[in-house]
Amino acid sequence: MNELKGACIIGQSGGPTSVINASAYGVIDTALKSGAITQVLGAEHGIKGVLNDRLFDMGLEDPEELRLMKYTPSSALGSCRYKIADPEKDDTDYKRILEVFKKHNVRYFFYNGGNDSMDTCHKISAYMQSVGYDCRVMGVPKTIDNDLFGTDHCPGYASAAKYIATSMMEVYQDAHVYDTGMIVVMEIMGRHAGWLTAAAALANEYGAGPDLIYLPEVDFSMPRFIEDVKRVYAEKGSCIVAVSEGIHYEDGSFVSEAKVAANDGFGHAQLGGLAAILAQVLKEQTGAKVRGIELNLLQRCGAHLASETDIEESFMAGKAAVENAVNGINGCMIGFERVIKNGKYTCKTKLIPLSEVANVEKKIPRDWINEAGNGVKSQFVDYALPLIQGEPNLPKVDSLPRFCKLKKILAK
Amino acid sequence: MNELKGACIIGQSGGPTSVINASAYGVIDTALKSGAITQVLGAEHGIKGVLNDRLFDMGLEDPEELRLMKYTPSSALGSCRYKIADPEKDDTDYKRILEVFKKHNVRYFFYNGGNDSMDTCHKISAYMQSVGYDCRVMGVPKTIDNDLFGTDHCPGYASAAKYIATSMMEVYQDAHVYDTGMIVVMEIMGRHAGWLTAAAALANEYGAGPDLIYLPEVDFSMPRFIEDVKRVYAEKGSCIVAVSEGIHYEDGSFVSEAKVAANDGFGHAQLGGLAAILAQVLKEQTGAKVRGIELNLLQRCGAHLASETDIEESFMAGKAAVENAVNGINGCMIGFERVIKNGKYTCKTKLIPLSEVANVEKKIPRDWINEAGNGVKSQFVDYALPLIQGEPNLPKVDSLPRFCKLKKILAK
Repeated sequence: MNELKGACIIGQSGGPTSVINASAYGVIDTALKSGAITQVLGAEHGIKGVLNDRLFDMGLEDPEELRLMKYTPSSALGSCRYKIADPEKDDTDYKRILEVFKKHNVRYFFYNGGNDSMDTCHKISAYMQSVGYDCRVMGVPKTIDNDLFGTDHCPGYASAAKYIATSMMEVYQDAHVYDTGMIVVMEIMGRHAGWLTAAAALANEYGAGPDLIYLPEVDFSMPRFIEDVKRVYAEKGSCIVAVSEGIHYEDGSFVSEAKVAANDGFGHAQLGGLAAILAQVLKEQTGAKVRGIELNLLQRCGAHLASETDIEESFMAGKAAVENAVNGINGCMIGFERVIKNGKYTCKTKLIPLSEVANVEKKIPRDWINEAGNGVKSQFVDYALPLIQGEPNLPKVDSLPRFCKLKKILAK
Repeated sequence: MNELKGACIIGQSGGPTSVINASAYGVIDTALKSGAITQVLGAEHGIKGVLNDRLFDMGLEDPEELRLMKYTPSSALGSCRYKIADPEKDDTDYKRILEVFKKHNVRYFFYNGGNDSMDTCHKISAYMQSVGYDCRVMGVPKTIDNDLFGTDHCPGYASAAKYIATSMMEVYQDAHVYDTGMIVVMEIMGRHAGWLTAAAALANEYGAGPDLIYLPEVDFSMPRFIEDVKRVYAEKGSCIVAVSEGIHYEDGSFVSEAKVAANDGFGHAQLGGLAAILAQVLKEQTGAKVRGIELNLLQRCGAHLASETDIEESFMAGKAAVENAVNGINGCMIGFERVIKNGKYTCKTKLIPLSEVANVEKKIPRDWINEAGNGVKSQFVDYALPLIQGEPNLPKVDSLPRFCKLKKILAK
């Protein structure tokens, strides 16, 4: 075995999820118990914490508070949306990272994030190899968007999906209460992939789901949309619609475009307000009572509805990253492989080279979407339903969540 | 004892809550077991179901499905926002109600709703007395707004409050994740009373609550609001604001007024879009990243976060309505009285004449709100915290909610 002794850094990046801390805890807990890893450092605000040498000594934390990370949404160490340059164009950041790595004798780097973070991870891994610094770099995936390449699904997706399906079922009850019909447009996250919005379809299995679903995988047509809603409303006296924030016209322009306001730092337009736009259109077209609902941040931080399966798999991903790195693996992201045993869903980890993952987006296969492009087929439900199973035993105080409290003591 | 034998009607009215069905189940279960009540009829869409003689025979329902009503949000029998006329002006509806009552030998009428429903209830009670029809009319309160007069609190409030406080705590985690600060404006329901918005303050007890709270009890000033947010943002690098949809300027006009769109049938303006308006103002004024979040329908139907205390009290209110009516009480609403026993919260029912309840709104006492009018004091927390306690054992199938399925067979 190729033994490498030294400190490790765990950093978190990108938008938070309900279970990203479960993965970080998987890394921290496993690293603290590893003989090869001499110190476990938590980077404040991801790669920025490395650049600024703001590294917390995780070994000084109360073990019980660390354990509570499993049930604490959002990135406990702090996140960032900082994109490091291509090393050929500007290697300033890389030199600084190397300097900090050397200062703390960092030999393991674990980065917990989505697509952009895997790109960061890949660049650091390649740079360290190019300068001959012995260091193992591993990606620990997270994204509610479920759009990472090469893995069956992503940590964080299932908990958001469960939040969406449950909220949809509850809103369905509410929207069918009056004898005067109601149209509801629920806007769900997902810029380029419709995995989250499709999760609303899980509610259909239990008789309380959307009549129509629009995903970014299919070009959006406003006239067809209006026709669909009018038809359902005429038939049923109500209509529930799930739309992805990322739906776009044939020319690629976002339907929400009129409202594009700011920039999130990675060059994505910040979307929002789509539900309000579509509700207004439907109000004018149908004269019905229409409600636009945007699930907003709630869907990515609603840890009270987390999937126990997701929590445990997220922890497993962090654990596997450390175990594989200690065993000599470098430059890989942990992925998930679905294994059906006796008809039952199980999941095991696998290794995916970062070079294959970075900047590739996985979308819903077109044949999982109905021909009209306004609903999903049973393949999607078969795929997603096992992922949302299980109720975590949430720690609470006075019936409110008890989140972890970290001391965050800077390493010397 | 004044024994009166005959059928009963239970109807639901107004906006749904997470636990209105728990109250309806309290009525139905108790009535089915009562010797005095010969048949239990559920009115489809409240008083409209009576007018249209659309009455379900609740005795034909599966008892287990009826029990699941305790955990099913929204009005299982259907609701309405139909306002009956003053009987002196137009007694058509009352004559029709009497006709239907006589047809089914209805001697008990239970109406499950908020302020407007108690007014309906009161008018029917007075009419039946005036025409000498022996019938007992009782109000079973429900409203997330918590604004009914004469009761310590209202069934439905606590579950919505728990949803709001929990969501606030989760959003707090999310909003503090980046090193670049963020301003969040969370819009919470409540037209004239701030009970729901104030519930966000419960999150402050656990270190994850709003910095500023604006309630309809205090006149809103846009310049002061901007100044407050700027001050907090300068100090902390972030700012979380909870605002009631009903905040208004000194002249009484709603801050959200620009967006007033429709009418809900009772003559209230339908509010919405306030979070977006305030977020836009703050963006312009601070240049910060600002998120407007509207909790929307989710807060009133989020049964997955219901308070067990609220569920059990709601059931108790329905039960007490039947028991009191059978014992000869007429023309009253069931209210709650808080009793502190050995420092512990307990709750018992009491009777409040409908004449005192109808159309009076209970607001948060001014001295529970801080002097600056941008936060609440400990009296509010002491009041609200006991109400949200307890986790219901939610029935689920495949980790999604299992709501009741009623057959709704029309009575002959």
